[in-house]
Amino acid sequence: MISFSSMRFLLGPILMGLAFLMLAPCAVAWHYGSPDLNAFLLSEAATASTAILLMITGRRKLLHFRLRDMFLLTSVSWLLVCAFGSLPFILSHTVASVTDAVFESVSAITTTGATVLTGLDSMPRDMLLWRSMMQWLGGLGIIALGTAVLPFLRIGGMRLFNTESSDLSEKALPSTRRILNRLLLIYLIISAACATCYVFAGMTVFDAINHAMTTVSTGGFSTHDSSFTFFDSRLAELVCVIFMLLAAVPFMLYLPLMFGRRSGLLSDGQVQSMLAIYFSVATVLTIWLIVNDQVESSAAIREAIFNVVSIGTTTGFVSTDYSEWGSFAAMAFFFLTFVGGCSGSTSGGIKIFRFKIAAVMLRETLQRLLHPNAVFSRSMQGRPLSDEIVASVMAFSLVFATIVGLAATLLAAAGNDVVTSFSAAATTMANVGPGIGDVIGPTGNFASLSDQSKWVLCVTMLLGRLEIFTLLLLLTPEFWRG
Amino acid sequence: MISFSSMRFLLGPILMGLAFLMLAPCAVAWHYGSPDLNAFLLSEAATASTAILLMITGRRKLLHFRLRDMFLLTSVSWLLVCAFGSLPFILSHTVASVTDAVFESVSAITTTGATVLTGLDSMPRDMLLWRSMMQWLGGLGIIALGTAVLPFLRIGGMRLFNTESSDLSEKALPSTRRILNRLLLIYLIISAACATCYVFAGMTVFDAINHAMTTVSTGGFSTHDSSFTFFDSRLAELVCVIFMLLAAVPFMLYLPLMFGRRSGLLSDGQVQSMLAIYFSVATVLTIWLIVNDQVESSAAIREAIFNVVSIGTTTGFVSTDYSEWGSFAAMAFFFLTFVGGCSGSTSGGIKIFRFKIAAVMLRETLQRLLHPNAVFSRSMQGRPLSDEIVASVMAFSLVFATIVGLAATLLAAAGNDVVTSFSAAATTMANVGPGIGDVIGPTGNFASLSDQSKWVLCVTMLLGRLEIFTLLLLLTPEFWRG
Repeated sequence: MISFSSMRFLLGPILMGLAFLMLAPCAVAWHYGSPDLNAFLLSEAATASTAILLMITGRRKLLHFRLRDMFLLTSVSWLLVCAFGSLPFILSHTVASVTDAVFESVSAITTTGATVLTGLDSMPRDMLLWRSMMQWLGGLGIIALGTAVLPFLRIGGMRLFNTESSDLSEKALPSTRRILNRLLLIYLIISAACATCYVFAGMTVFDAINHAMTTVSTGGFSTHDSSFTFFDSRLAELVCVIFMLLAAVPFMLYLPLMFGRRSGLLSDGQVQSMLAIYFSVATVLTIWLIVNDQVESSAAIREAIFNVVSIGTTTGFVSTDYSEWGSFAAMAFFFLTFVGGCSGSTSGGIKIFRFKIAAVMLRETLQRLLHPNAVFSRSMQGRPLSDEIVASVMAFSLVFATIVGLAATLLAAAGNDVVTSFSAAATTMANVGPGIGDVIGPTGNFASLSDQSKWVLCVTMLLGRLEIFTLLLLLTPEFWRG
Repeated sequence: MISFSSMRFLLGPILMGLAFLMLAPCAVAWHYGSPDLNAFLLSEAATASTAILLMITGRRKLLHFRLRDMFLLTSVSWLLVCAFGSLPFILSHTVASVTDAVFESVSAITTTGATVLTGLDSMPRDMLLWRSMMQWLGGLGIIALGTAVLPFLRIGGMRLFNTESSDLSEKALPSTRRILNRLLLIYLIISAACATCYVFAGMTVFDAINHAMTTVSTGGFSTHDSSFTFFDSRLAELVCVIFMLLAAVPFMLYLPLMFGRRSGLLSDGQVQSMLAIYFSVATVLTIWLIVNDQVESSAAIREAIFNVVSIGTTTGFVSTDYSEWGSFAAMAFFFLTFVGGCSGSTSGGIKIFRFKIAAVMLRETLQRLLHPNAVFSRSMQGRPLSDEIVASVMAFSLVFATIVGLAATLLAAAGNDVVTSFSAAATTMANVGPGIGDVIGPTGNFASLSDQSKWVLCVTMLLGRLEIFTLLLLLTPEFWRG
C-alpha cells in the first residue's frame, strides 16, 4: 500500500489548486465589502496551510506507486476537495447546517447541480462565484480523470478509451501531462467562448461568467432561483444548448483542432449516437407538447430541445417547469437522466458508449439464439470489444441500477415519497441535478430533505462521478489485503 | 421455416388439452344451472373443433424441425391458448370488453394474477374455476417450457440448465417426454396436497381447490375480492407460504424423491439464495413494522413473511393492505417484484440464478480491477460459466429493465401516473400481479386502466413469461430471413 507520506505529497498540489481558485471569491468579497469576506479568508488560510503542510511533510520520492494507490488517491483527492470546498459555506453561515454545506459542496464538485440554497438572486456575489467555480473545477477534474486515470484503471469498460494519454507508466508520464495541459487550455477556451456568447445574449458579465462555468462543466448551478427562466432569452438558451452539447463530447476530440487538423468530432460514433438520442427524445416531446398540451409549436420545439439537452448532458438548467407536462414527459426525463453524455467529457450518467456496447451485445445475443454454434467477433468503431470490456460495462450498468435502487430504498426509509426517492437517487447518481415530482422537480429544491437523505445523496453523487468502482473497490477487504 | 401444416399438427394437441380442461367449468355450470353454461359450451365447441381441425389438416411428418421453428411454435402456442382461454369471458359477458377478456386470460395463462374483475365473491363458480384452471395450466406450461424448451433454446443464460430433459433431438425425445410426464405427476401431487391442506385450514372444498391451483402456479387469483384477507386464518396463510415456496423451486429437484432418493432440494444454490433473500427482506420489514408502524410483533412477522413470499415468488396473494406500510415498504415490494423465484419453477421475475451470476461477475470485475492481468475461471455450483451464458444473462437483465422502462413510458403516455406506470410495467413483466400505489396496489384492481394500457400490459405479461427473447426474436428481420 502507498505510504501516507507519498500520499500527502500528491494531495498537496491538488489542495493548493483549490486554495488558488479560492482567491477569486476572496477578491470579490473584498471588492464588494461582503459579509462573507472573513469566511473566505479563513477558508483560504485553512486550505492553503493544509496544502503547504501536506507538501512539506510529504515524501517527494514515489517508490512502487501501484494500481491500488491510484484508486485510493483518486477517491481521497475528491473527498478532500469536497471537504475544503464546503468551508466557506460553513463559516459564512450561508447554509443551515454542516450537512447542507457538504451537500452543496459535493453537488458542486461532482457537477451535479442539486442545491439546498434559495434566495440566490440576493446572495452575495462571492458565494455565487464560489459555487460556480467549484463546478468548473469539478468539470476539469472529471475530464482529466476520464481521459487519463479511469481508462488506466479499466473501470466500467473505460479501457476501451486506453490511449497514449492514459499510459501512466513513468516513461509516458510527460506525454500524459502534455495532453492534460492541452485539455486544460481547451477547457479554458471553450469556457471563455461560452461567457462571451452569454454576454452577447444579454447576460451581465457576472451572470455570463458564472453560467459559462456551470455550462461547460455540465453542472447547472445558476445565479438565479429560477435558473434560465430568469433570462427569458431565446438567444441565451440557444448559446446554452450549443455549449452543453460541446461539453458533453469527449474533450480529446478537440485536440486535433489545436494543430489545425480536422477533428473527428461529427464522425465519432459516440457523438453521433448522443445527438441521435437527444434529437429523438426532443422530437417526441415536441410532438407531445403540441398535440397533447396544445403548446404553440415554436415554443414547444424550443422548450423540448433545451430541457432534453439540459437533462441529457446532465447539466440540469431549467427553462420551464416541465413537471407541468404530465407523467409521460416526467417518465421521458427520468430515463434521460440515466443516459448522460460521452465518456471523457464533463457529463455524467451511464454514458453513451455503454449503451452502444449494450446494443452490440443485444444484437449478438439475438443472433446467437438463431445460430448457436456461430463464432462472433465484436467490435465498435473499429476497435475490438474484448470480453473484459463487455463484462465491465454490463457489471457497471447493473451496479448502477442496483445502487439507484438501494439509495431509493434508503430515501424512502428516511420518509420521502416513492417518486422523490427514486428520482433523487437517479438524478444524483447521474450527476444531473433536478428530479421529477413536487419536491425536487425543476422548480423544487433539495433543502427540505432530511439530513439522512442528504448524506445518502452525497454518497450517490460521489459514486456516480467516480464511476462507482473507484469508490466501491475501497470497500472490499481484498483491496486492503496484501 | 416450418410449414404451416406441421405447425397445425403440433398446435392441435395443445388446444385439445385446453378443450379438455374446459369440460370442468362446463360441468360445474351445468350442475349449478349457471347462466354461463351456454358461454362455456360454445367456447368448448369452438376450442375442440379448432383443435380437431388443426390436427386433421396438419401434416403428421416433421421434416427439418429447426431451432427457429421452436421459437415460433412456443410463442404461437401461448398466444393461441390465451385467445381461446378468453372465449368464456367474452361470450358470458363477465367482463366489459374484449380487451378485458384478453387481459384476464393473458393474466391467467401467464400466472400473473392481475385482474380486471370485481365482485368475485358473488361470481358464478364455473367462471371462478376457469380462471383458476387457466393459471394452473399456465403453471404447468412454464414448468415444461423452463425445463425442456428454454434451456434448449439457450435463452437468457438458461443453457446453464441444459440437462437430459432439454435435449430435443429425435433420439432423446422419448426420455424428455418421460421426464415431462413425471413433472406433470409431481405438479398434480403438490396441487392435491395443497388443496387438502387448505381444507384442513378451514377453506371450503371449492375455495381450497381454486386456491391450490393458483398457489402452486404462483398465479395468485382468488375467489374473493379481498384475497387471503377474506379467510383471516393463520393456518391458511402458513399453508399458502409453504406451497408458494414449494412452487418457486425448480421442479426437477423433486424428481429424485419419486424414486425414494434424496433430493438436493436444500443444498441447491438457487434455492438457498432464494430463501436467504426472502428471509432478509422479511426480517427487515418485520423490524420496520414493529419499530416504525407500532405493529404487534407476531402480526408483524406473519404479515411480513406472507407478503414477502407472495410477491417474491411472484404469486401475488394479499393478506393485508401493505400500501399502508409507507413508502419504504412500497419500495421494498417494488424491488422484490423483480427478484422472482428459481428457474424451472412456476414463478416469474428475473430469477435467482441470474442474480447469482451477476454476483459472480461483480466479484470478478472488482478483482480484475486490482489484478488486471490475472486469468479468472468462472463457475457456479460446480458448472463452468461460459462467456455465452454470462453475456446472455447480462443481456436479459438489461433488456428486462429496458422493456419495463419502455412500457412504463407508454403507460404514462396513456395517462397513468408515474408510480402506477412503473409498478404496472414491473409487476406484469415479472408476472407478479399486484403493484404499488392507489390504483393497482394490493387493494386495487386493473379495471380502471385504459384499453391502451391493458394491451401494453398484455404484451409485458407475455414477454415476461416467455423470457422476453422467445417473442423478441420473432420481431427481428433476421428471424424471417433465410
